[in-house]
Amino acid sequence: MTITSNPQVYDTTLRDGGQQEGMNLSVADKLAIAAQLDQLGVGFIEGGWPGAIPKDTEFFRQAKTQLPLAHAVLVAFGSTRKAGTDVAQDGQVAALLQAGTPAVTLVAKSDIRHVERALKTTGAENLQMIRDTVGYLVGKGRRVFLDCEHFFDGYRHDPAYTTDCVRAAHEAGAEAVVLCDTNGGMLPDRVEEVVAQVAAAVPGVHLGIHTHNDSGCAVANAMAALRAGATHVQGTMNGYGERTGNCDLATVIANLELKCGVRALPEGKLGELTGVSHAIAEIANQAPAKRAPYVGDSAFAHKAGLHASAIRIDPDLYQHIDPLAVGNDMRMLVSEMAGRATIELKARELGFDLQGQPEVLARVVARVKSAEARGYTYDAADASFELLLREVVQGARPVYYETESWRAIAEQRGGTDSALTEATVKVHAGQRRLVAVGEGNGPVNALDEALRGALVAVYPELADIELVDYKVRILDSSVGTGAVTRVLIESARRGDSQGRVWRTVGVAANIIEASWEALTDAIVYGLIHAGVEPR
Amino acid sequence: MTITSNPQVYDTTLRDGGQQEGMNLSVADKLAIAAQLDQLGVGFIEGGWPGAIPKDTEFFRQAKTQLPLAHAVLVAFGSTRKAGTDVAQDGQVAALLQAGTPAVTLVAKSDIRHVERALKTTGAENLQMIRDTVGYLVGKGRRVFLDCEHFFDGYRHDPAYTTDCVRAAHEAGAEAVVLCDTNGGMLPDRVEEVVAQVAAAVPGVHLGIHTHNDSGCAVANAMAALRAGATHVQGTMNGYGERTGNCDLATVIANLELKCGVRALPEGKLGELTGVSHAIAEIANQAPAKRAPYVGDSAFAHKAGLHASAIRIDPDLYQHIDPLAVGNDMRMLVSEMAGRATIELKARELGFDLQGQPEVLARVVARVKSAEARGYTYDAADASFELLLREVVQGARPVYYETESWRAIAEQRGGTDSALTEATVKVHAGQRRLVAVGEGNGPVNALDEALRGALVAVYPELADIELVDYKVRILDSSVGTGAVTRVLIESARRGDSQGRVWRTVGVAANIIEASWEALTDAIVYGLIHAGVEPR
Repeated sequence: MTITSNPQVYDTTLRDGGQQEGMNLSVADKLAIAAQLDQLGVGFIEGGWPGAIPKDTEFFRQAKTQLPLAHAVLVAFGSTRKAGTDVAQDGQVAALLQAGTPAVTLVAKSDIRHVERALKTTGAENLQMIRDTVGYLVGKGRRVFLDCEHFFDGYRHDPAYTTDCVRAAHEAGAEAVVLCDTNGGMLPDRVEEVVAQVAAAVPGVHLGIHTHNDSGCAVANAMAALRAGATHVQGTMNGYGERTGNCDLATVIANLELKCGVRALPEGKLGELTGVSHAIAEIANQAPAKRAPYVGDSAFAHKAGLHASAIRIDPDLYQHIDPLAVGNDMRMLVSEMAGRATIELKARELGFDLQGQPEVLARVVARVKSAEARGYTYDAADASFELLLREVVQGARPVYYETESWRAIAEQRGGTDSALTEATVKVHAGQRRLVAVGEGNGPVNALDEALRGALVAVYPELADIELVDYKVRILDSSVGTGAVTRVLIESARRGDSQGRVWRTVGVAANIIEASWEALTDAIVYGLIHAGVEPR
Repeated sequence: MTITSNPQVYDTTLRDGGQQEGMNLSVADKLAIAAQLDQLGVGFIEGGWPGAIPKDTEFFRQAKTQLPLAHAVLVAFGSTRKAGTDVAQDGQVAALLQAGTPAVTLVAKSDIRHVERALKTTGAENLQMIRDTVGYLVGKGRRVFLDCEHFFDGYRHDPAYTTDCVRAAHEAGAEAVVLCDTNGGMLPDRVEEVVAQVAAAVPGVHLGIHTHNDSGCAVANAMAALRAGATHVQGTMNGYGERTGNCDLATVIANLELKCGVRALPEGKLGELTGVSHAIAEIANQAPAKRAPYVGDSAFAHKAGLHASAIRIDPDLYQHIDPLAVGNDMRMLVSEMAGRATIELKARELGFDLQGQPEVLARVVARVKSAEARGYTYDAADASFELLLREVVQGARPVYYETESWRAIAEQRGGTDSALTEATVKVHAGQRRLVAVGEGNGPVNALDEALRGALVAVYPELADIELVDYKVRILDSSVGTGAVTRVLIESARRGDSQGRVWRTVGVAANIIEASWEALTDAIVYGLIHAGVEPR
């Protein structure tokens, strides 16, 4: 069978993805990831479980005012009503309504063993819980999806009962009923067979698929379900999730668009896949997986000597797709040709046309490569990249001040008091020597206070610039605290109505030194774009 | 279709796996990996390309005396003879014989476009090269496999020619003809279809499958080929390989044995899978992938509170297989979603039975929840969780020292020199006041040096404890550098043969203070588990 219609693409990075070991998303992280997913153009964004997890309740509250979605439908996740109660009195169901989303996804048990042993209720009551809760929320104007938990294991044990759950949800008005391989152990042929059987048994139902990667087949299982007639596919960006992870939605999207000829994103959006994947990794503070299909740094990197000479002649014979289609790029390992096209495009985006200047472009590429080898990354630091470009293209970047010295001290006396931090900065600007001290609740905060405190006497425009985010990544974990540190800083102009931010990067063995570098870039970029000339 | 016979399991970690970006295996590494693979019981170990790669020539030379294989057949890899030459005069073919292995795998072009554009010869001559080289090596007593490079792309372009290549190899005596998805872009349904067609077109042929993960389906593609009648499966341990990697043989082996009911390893060997996977990762100097199916550290780690209470009752309902079957283990993670059941299970794992002590359990849960609300996370910090448990259960944690004060200074003079960092620590232990200074390339590194430098006078056991990893996460990004910082530290005992590590966490507004807290936990945990009493 082939996939013939465009499926609903449903992202659960914010809920199921957050189950990944070591991942802990703040409300701000979740809002930022949702904005990225919406920019990519996924159909649905499952935000979390309001009422059950306080952070998720807060996410939906803030989303109402701070998350204008262009493409995606925001979804609140919850469960069917409790056994033996009235759905209209169920606090958790009420919280789903209060989340104020256009759509709600309910999880229900569909394996009779889980119904009896974990829920400790009867199969009949569980079916009634499904009908009541779906019907109630549909009556309140919600689009309702139903996730059948442990569906495939349940189907093996008792196909009639699991199918009854699907039928109950469908008849109560669920827009789609999602078959979940909760334990993740299925193989594609079995998924295809079961989905086809359920589709035949419940005429008119729209089926969805939710898979995990425990047998290394999450993506293939999702594709198998779509081949068998499912019309809704769930997954997480970069495959984040509990245990071995969820189905990687980035891979599924690219497979659907490039291999199956159906549309998973709005037209023209597939080229943003790599960028969005990497941005979400940064927000989630995860190193992007180099070997990820389509979006990994290594996904189109060629090493084999066997191929190297032939690739230049005929790249299509050595790549399964054109990497530009997903916003990635071919890389020849040990080759200086890599990345030129990307950098040229990026420069043009920033207003520097390097098309007629191959030698300037070559110098920019060389600078970027050498910086990246030392740990810099410009994917997430546009502002630092622009400063690098200016330096190469214009010969130098504007010099707003000269640093004489800086010092940061963190100190704690007695075992229990909070540590105190103080920073001193000495700089020269506008023919003046400026000395300032800053206090803060950390050394970087104190340095930021001191540096802006010193410079504001000459550049009053800095009073409006503030730091809004700060991320740290340790790059080489083989030498403990002696490793190289990369700091990413996000800055904004207070009161900027469009909410524009700029991001800068610093790299050093010393975390404070790396932060100082990123702070410096942030201030220089802010002054340039405020139209301020060096004084 | 189902898989009915036990396939040949063929490992190419040493050749194709070594193409992975950043991987560089020495001859000693290759011998050590081969020994691990043989211990696991794979059928064939492809060692490399003698004659083409000097390191591989040397590997086969040393393997003759230093690699007694109990299960596996060693295989030398090479290509068919050059176009327009006599196979008996071909130096590369002679090197294959000199390698002295019982089996040889030849790679041949099977996509006519590659034959004409890369090899620059005719289709007919390429077929003759296959016949000559297979026949020659079979005549010399070798078992011969033929890898059809770019088979699936070639088949789409010209099915008759690719099938002719298979037929030529089969008729010349090849034991199996391996269909390679060299560019890695196939999906399982198409693989299944093509393999079935080729099997029907060349009666009596034994087909093999060699896949890459570019569409996220390497494992599923291999399984699809086996379902369609292939009897030989190639892959690499942990999926190492160029670009997105090869088919992960560890996953395929477990799927075959546990899901398909066929044998991929000698009886009783499957339980060594996790150990061998990790050992090979260590030898190859790669961090084991936590989320790898079956063998990853996270593969059977449960976080969701939703499940934890039920897992206690019935683990089989929440795991797709028994983790012990592959030598792995279930783990409970402690997270904000965790309820009492998770924490009780986790405590039991650490040797604290809280089943009969509901009020103690309630206090632990309250402590965990309150700490997590302030930014702590315990799913990645087992050691800090154990210290918290001890504090609640035993009333207090052991006090090895009292802190009088600490101070860290980072300083830079002039715009270009590296920053200098220095830390001073004053502590009291064993009736002594201990003062030490540490230098480092960052404040945390300096503090670590100073703290251990001070304490080692009273606790010489600390000389063996070292920091091996350090992670920083900014938790709430709404207030710039004033945000709360979480630090995770990984420590180990030098020379620990089992490679055990422990992870601790610290949280504070001040990054240095958070690091100090995590350092302190790391040292206390290390001393407790070294059996040291407070002095």
